[in-house]
Amino acid sequence: MGGSIPEADAANTSAEAGHGNRFYNTSLVFGPDGALLGTHRKAHLFDIDIPGKITFRESAVLSPGDQVTLVELPGYGAIAVAICYDVRFPELATIAARRGAFALVYPGAFNLTTGALHWELLGRARALDNQVYVALCSPARVAGAGYTAWGHSLVVDPWAKVVAEAGEGQETVCVELVPETLEEVRRMIPLRMQRRWDIYPDVSKVAP
Amino acid sequence: MGGSIPEADAANTSAEAGHGNRFYNTSLVFGPDGALLGTHRKAHLFDIDIPGKITFRESAVLSPGDQVTLVELPGYGAIAVAICYDVRFPELATIAARRGAFALVYPGAFNLTTGALHWELLGRARALDNQVYVALCSPARVAGAGYTAWGHSLVVDPWAKVVAEAGEGQETVCVELVPETLEEVRRMIPLRMQRRWDIYPDVSKVAP
Repeated sequence: MGGSIPEADAANTSAEAGHGNRFYNTSLVFGPDGALLGTHRKAHLFDIDIPGKITFRESAVLSPGDQVTLVELPGYGAIAVAICYDVRFPELATIAARRGAFALVYPGAFNLTTGALHWELLGRARALDNQVYVALCSPARVAGAGYTAWGHSLVVDPWAKVVAEAGEGQETVCVELVPETLEEVRRMIPLRMQRRWDIYPDVSKVAP
Repeated sequence: MGGSIPEADAANTSAEAGHGNRFYNTSLVFGPDGALLGTHRKAHLFDIDIPGKITFRESAVLSPGDQVTLVELPGYGAIAVAICYDVRFPELATIAARRGAFALVYPGAFNLTTGALHWELLGRARALDNQVYVALCSPARVAGAGYTAWGHSLVVDPWAKVVAEAGEGQETVCVELVPETLEEVRRMIPLRMQRRWDIYPDVSKVAP
């Protein structure tokens, strides 16, 4: 996986916009042999408009994806992939985990405000509620860049503990994901057996 | 509100158990005038059995509630009430917040292990995802007691910041809940307008 990039979808021209191709914010997953194993198109575009403060309209240039993305890694199992703002919408994580993902991977570029407030918390919350590994991967922070990213790529284990975290700069973190840790958490805190499907529906099983 | 207590439900005898009344783990909410405003019966009973390590079966003596509980506080709005282990099941919080609760209140008695791991994180995660206030209220820690509670009652604001926290001992914390903070968070991070109901269902609107 290598973050996310703009993807032009030549097969799907945007009639509404009245011009050319449709573009997505897309993350690609490749196997060690170079085979493309899966893609995720960012489903939640960040649009905000607070007059005089901040205006950001990702949907002005991008189209949203419409899928929860699981990617099967041969020999390992399935991971889920989503992008940046997607992490704020717990349903994607819940559906992916209930469908068998052992890890949720989010490339993302939070800013210095939202990064300080919520980056680590979001990673830990998704791990906690879904009892899975979570990896958040950010660009390094570059002073004076057009967009200053929070950095702090991190990996959270299924106990919701941060087991590895980069600093602000360019850095590689390596973590071994341990299947027994997944099993241990789920045995010790048996959420999966104790949900009350008679009180609330299972978002992974009900059609939207 | 005053924590939770065993409630005998004389009207609902337990035929299956073959003896007497049914009992619930129940939290009661009273108004300043003493009027009973609402009750929550703990919906998720904590049953765990790891041979040689820990066995705890709340369902051996208690019956589970079957409701998401909102309580209208005259002049203020609605709060949600749930109890202890209920906080680990995000659907209760999600449904309550989407139905209009401005605060989620959980009496709970985590132990020293789960308290250290997850007490504050759960409070912050529920506030973060639902953009509401969250209050977790624990018994004080008493050395040598039959059950040693984590303590650390706390209030989290809709930004997911802990705005007040007790220590381990007996203590009163007071926090003013500010409606403008709710509005500010929801304007700055407009989750509520950007959910993708075409990808996943709304658990607050779909029948179980």
